[in-house]
Amino acid sequence: MRIVALAGGIGGARFLRGLKQAAPEADITVIGNTGDDISLFGLRICPDLDTVMYTLGGGINEEQGWGRTEETFTLREELAAYDIGPGWFTLGDRDFATHIVRTQMLDAGYPLSAVTEALCDRWRPGVRLLPMSDDRVETHVVIEDAEGRRAVHFQEWWVRLHAEVPAQGIGAVGAEDAKPAPGVLEALDAADFVILPPSNPVVSVGTILSVPGIRAAVAAKTVVGVSPIIGGAPVRGMADACLTAIGVETSAGAVAAHYGPDLLDGWLVDTADAGLEDSSGGTVIRSRPLLMTDVDATADIARAAIDLAGELRP
Amino acid sequence: MRIVALAGGIGGARFLRGLKQAAPEADITVIGNTGDDISLFGLRICPDLDTVMYTLGGGINEEQGWGRTEETFTLREELAAYDIGPGWFTLGDRDFATHIVRTQMLDAGYPLSAVTEALCDRWRPGVRLLPMSDDRVETHVVIEDAEGRRAVHFQEWWVRLHAEVPAQGIGAVGAEDAKPAPGVLEALDAADFVILPPSNPVVSVGTILSVPGIRAAVAAKTVVGVSPIIGGAPVRGMADACLTAIGVETSAGAVAAHYGPDLLDGWLVDTADAGLEDSSGGTVIRSRPLLMTDVDATADIARAAIDLAGELRP
Repeated sequence: MRIVALAGGIGGARFLRGLKQAAPEADITVIGNTGDDISLFGLRICPDLDTVMYTLGGGINEEQGWGRTEETFTLREELAAYDIGPGWFTLGDRDFATHIVRTQMLDAGYPLSAVTEALCDRWRPGVRLLPMSDDRVETHVVIEDAEGRRAVHFQEWWVRLHAEVPAQGIGAVGAEDAKPAPGVLEALDAADFVILPPSNPVVSVGTILSVPGIRAAVAAKTVVGVSPIIGGAPVRGMADACLTAIGVETSAGAVAAHYGPDLLDGWLVDTADAGLEDSSGGTVIRSRPLLMTDVDATADIARAAIDLAGELRP
Repeated sequence: MRIVALAGGIGGARFLRGLKQAAPEADITVIGNTGDDISLFGLRICPDLDTVMYTLGGGINEEQGWGRTEETFTLREELAAYDIGPGWFTLGDRDFATHIVRTQMLDAGYPLSAVTEALCDRWRPGVRLLPMSDDRVETHVVIEDAEGRRAVHFQEWWVRLHAEVPAQGIGAVGAEDAKPAPGVLEALDAADFVILPPSNPVVSVGTILSVPGIRAAVAAKTVVGVSPIIGGAPVRGMADACLTAIGVETSAGAVAAHYGPDLLDGWLVDTADAGLEDSSGGTVIRSRPLLMTDVDATADIARAAIDLAGELRP
């Protein structure tokens, strides 16, 4: 069984852990969002790729969902002592090592896909992890506050401003000129089906789909998604702020409609959203418990997604 | 009183601490050796500048003489887990922050002299610390062992091989095309006298003097040196291996002769080398205890150097 999943950070990574347990024999390729990537302290940081890599490789900080376990923050203190910012983006000492290795390889000319493969040589996540693109794509957010109207890097809005300043627009800068990373279209072409984990539909899955060629290659397959919205609210994170910015209601049904029936064949919603089953316009909607309370519960959700994909495959 | 000192790492830095105590009102400019600088993990490391900065700024690991106090080594472990080398060059977490700040500024286009000044904004070493040059100069060592005859970076010979493989030659690659950093010649021109601390005469002071223009500017001044060789052996480090490589005997007298009377006006040797006083050929040699056992003893040595310079000034 060949599965491709498009993943953002925490929600995607946790879902993938369940997917691996549900389908231990499957050949899983993960296409990771790189729109959140940012350069800080001269180092290239890929939060979503790292969250997937650390989560599946056993290095994640389980409680916070991102960053390394048994982390220390000596460098952070030292950089603050040098008055070098930004202080709002927390990087631990163990995590720094990943960014140092990545930056050194990027500077040496390796594309991000090769760098990610090299990092995974250590973490052995049990999936093939590909960045959506080797080209730089950066999610920017248009905001307006006391400092005026301006576009800021996604991380500045998300982490520094906690997405509390309304986004007037969200765009993936560089996406239109980006090419899918080597292996992305090939993996999609070879896939039996595609899964959209409960990642942010705008700045995670949406950004991946914005790379020319990827949306069409995904749409050509049987696609089953897991709703990140339960009962009108995001399970975690601030997906509602992103959906509002692009004019989509924060509801499981609206997100399915946003993906569109041309892309989305099946959609799992939570039992809290039972009743949506009849509302499909081409997308088959099923309800079941979607809270990823632990790996077993998550594996059950993944199994349901796999089953629905099997049912919907031509 | 305006003093310029040419400094390498540990010996130079410890001497400078004594010099500051001996002459608290003096305007001291330190010209630091950058021939030992090396790029590791994509970061630019300036061991001698940092040792001076940390020692005078209160951040040095007193026991080992280099690196930061209260240091941890999480990054080192993590980089090893990624199988990224070299493992023979020890960098602590606190120290890494310095290299990250430096590299980020260098990559942004700032010259090393400006970067060093920015780092010193934090450390306030109480001297003006200048790199000998903003241009890259790298000390390479020609060795021959089981792997064949080859030139290696100074740090590989010094740290990895502990200078145990005889050096067949030592050269400062890039020195002939290097220019003194901004402020170096001006500081020398304005100096009342120049002090050569007990730094390595070959790979520290010798490398600084190899930058075109510096030797002549130093020689134009009254110059007093402190012998790093006591009783035929280096006080610390492996200066003997460097001296042997360039055909100079490991003795206080031979080092003075190597600097030459055109450069060196006064030379302090240890009481273990008493008797040399009469052997001068233009360089005035005085003996006194030279072991830098603590800051007070070091200040006494520095005071003797200042006194000798006062005596010898035209």
